[in-house]
Amino acid sequence: MYKILDEDSIKGYIDSTSEIRSLLLDKDESIENLEAKEIGDGNLNFVYIIKSKKRSLVLKQAVPFLRCVGVEYPLSRIRMTFEIEALKIEKEICPSFVPEIYYSSHDMSLVVMQNLDKHKILREEMINREVFPLLSQHISTFLADTLFYTSDFYLNSTKKKENVKKFTNIELCKITEDFIFTHPYEENETNEYNPKLDMNIVNRFRKDRDIKVAVAKMKYKFMTEAQALLHGDLHTGSIMLNKKETYVIDPEFAFYGPIGFDIGIYLANLTMSYFSLEFIEIKYKEYIKCMIIDTWELFANKFKANMINHEKRQKSLQWNYKGSLEHYEYFADEFIKKLFDDSIGFLACEMFRRTVGLAKVADIVKIKDLKRRAIVEKNMLECASKLITSKYKDIDEVIKEIEKYDNQ
Amino acid sequence: MYKILDEDSIKGYIDSTSEIRSLLLDKDESIENLEAKEIGDGNLNFVYIIKSKKRSLVLKQAVPFLRCVGVEYPLSRIRMTFEIEALKIEKEICPSFVPEIYYSSHDMSLVVMQNLDKHKILREEMINREVFPLLSQHISTFLADTLFYTSDFYLNSTKKKENVKKFTNIELCKITEDFIFTHPYEENETNEYNPKLDMNIVNRFRKDRDIKVAVAKMKYKFMTEAQALLHGDLHTGSIMLNKKETYVIDPEFAFYGPIGFDIGIYLANLTMSYFSLEFIEIKYKEYIKCMIIDTWELFANKFKANMINHEKRQKSLQWNYKGSLEHYEYFADEFIKKLFDDSIGFLACEMFRRTVGLAKVADIVKIKDLKRRAIVEKNMLECASKLITSKYKDIDEVIKEIEKYDNQ
Repeated sequence: MYKILDEDSIKGYIDSTSEIRSLLLDKDESIENLEAKEIGDGNLNFVYIIKSKKRSLVLKQAVPFLRCVGVEYPLSRIRMTFEIEALKIEKEICPSFVPEIYYSSHDMSLVVMQNLDKHKILREEMINREVFPLLSQHISTFLADTLFYTSDFYLNSTKKKENVKKFTNIELCKITEDFIFTHPYEENETNEYNPKLDMNIVNRFRKDRDIKVAVAKMKYKFMTEAQALLHGDLHTGSIMLNKKETYVIDPEFAFYGPIGFDIGIYLANLTMSYFSLEFIEIKYKEYIKCMIIDTWELFANKFKANMINHEKRQKSLQWNYKGSLEHYEYFADEFIKKLFDDSIGFLACEMFRRTVGLAKVADIVKIKDLKRRAIVEKNMLECASKLITSKYKDIDEVIKEIEKYDNQ
Repeated sequence: MYKILDEDSIKGYIDSTSEIRSLLLDKDESIENLEAKEIGDGNLNFVYIIKSKKRSLVLKQAVPFLRCVGVEYPLSRIRMTFEIEALKIEKEICPSFVPEIYYSSHDMSLVVMQNLDKHKILREEMINREVFPLLSQHISTFLADTLFYTSDFYLNSTKKKENVKKFTNIELCKITEDFIFTHPYEENETNEYNPKLDMNIVNRFRKDRDIKVAVAKMKYKFMTEAQALLHGDLHTGSIMLNKKETYVIDPEFAFYGPIGFDIGIYLANLTMSYFSLEFIEIKYKEYIKCMIIDTWELFANKFKANMINHEKRQKSLQWNYKGSLEHYEYFADEFIKKLFDDSIGFLACEMFRRTVGLAKVADIVKIKDLKRRAIVEKNMLECASKLITSKYKDIDEVIKEIEKYDNQ
């Protein structure tokens, strides 16, 4: 049943799949009116833009190997099943932040969805110093709502456990466990370094007890805490947007994990964009710091409001006495305090691995002067080392810490 | 395929099931030589002793309802599948503490196993003030080994996640969530009270912010932290023993949960036995305090040794440098410190629910003087309230705390 499509065979596939055909073509219209172009630059999948006279769509197909390496690195295409199922849940919770899904096929490991042609990738936009006044509002809502409405705070015990089971995403979790939580902290052949980066710094943190233990704890958390359905890969390359709209894409890493992971990964990518800036770019630096503060603060307020409002609506017996709502609010505050610590821990892990692991971020890699890049990377490593071994009262304290390490 | 057996039909079933028949009877021997007697006094299942001339066995069958209530309380018999699968894993890890399994059938929801006729239930033995010099050694090994060898510290990421999925034990987890973590903390119709217990104390703790929040955190931990395959119901009624041997039975509540839950439930049942004693029973009180201390200390040492030895054997790349073993040891210590806090938290929850929830423990219920029992119960509630809202350095501090509340 499954076959790998290409720019040629895709038209025949669409012709024979009436659900997709009818989206693009009139009944008697010829498939010759279709244009198909592969535009995927990701590591995992093939992405086609399909154009007809009346509209354009995106068709994304998973192949049973790691695209960026080739057929010799097998990776089960079941990841598309996780992406499809996660997209559906996210779409239901946050319709305005998730692309329209028109068709999906587990057999073909593909999904047909809205072509976001009026939107660009956030990472590239930040490299171009673009400003998005609604982004932090949007992302904090996406985080607070997807993470609340898939958690035990909202779902009943049965539904939540069925979800956990369904999203047992073994292979993609393993990639995260290896490439975020393990290889960057050892002399692994998959790691890649800026040749100008002082390896003494790298080797020092790889033998630092407090860093090792803190990272081991974050990895354990990632592997054991099934709190909510995570996006699982929420870096700034997984967000497409313009000044008005924000879309979160590519949830193939979705699984039930610790809520702080999604938040931390996103904040880390903002932080790395901050570190990539030159000394004089004060205004954009201020903007990114505001993004970090706003994202956290808005998320925390919205998540708490979700908790409180749900409790008010359901009036459970155990929180139903004079003063109980204040008590529940205290519980919410304590819970969010823990999410904050988790988020900063995961933030640090992401910053480590993007510096000394396999996958880099364009914000840093596009710094052509390798010596300057090495200074930036040294700052990031030292900042991450400090963040993961410290406790902070609030996001403002974290920002102050980040500023301290921004000395090029 | 499935049918409910009784003392009559069970012989025909055995006759037609050659794997069981051959265990009990010679080839041409008549089933008239079999004796079958139902001895189950549990809440959930039917348990038969089957005797032939050459041996005796236990046959345990789950019925699709809650036995202690009747057919009007349906409870899926899939719980027997969890029990069978958990028994197999526990048996492999701890052969000497788990009964021999001779035959099991998921279709019939039954298991045929060793008849522990030289062993008695620990709870009853403690009520009779019996002493078991090897028990703490045995139970601490059972805990340290079953909980280590099913965790992420030992299993690879894939196997562990497959286990988590397989042991998605929705119905029995829901029973724990309701009857341990919810109903005792609200005015629920299922709760039962000693009529002499002062309800002011009960109502006070049900409206105490710090207790409510602490319990909510423990419940959340139970619902989200998939650390290891738990027994899930490790009270002193789930242990059969004599002076030389110890067996852990009835793991139908098995699921992937927080390690501290199994430890806490067991320690709580020791603690309640302690509280049930009269003022003058100093010697048995000392014995129980030793059991609590030994169980924790031995568990902690054995679990840590499991971690260290495994790390030494596998020599993973990330813990492979001069001094790395000390670092890993520090990680183990930090992890076990968290397990300790969790265990005491769960201990307190079990003590609450056995006092003001539906299910009671015989140690307390057999106190005939309801006024004295009410004093014991008041002490347990106040002790649990203190334990769950405090942090302790070590088990000795916890023992000192428990002693403070033992004033009849």
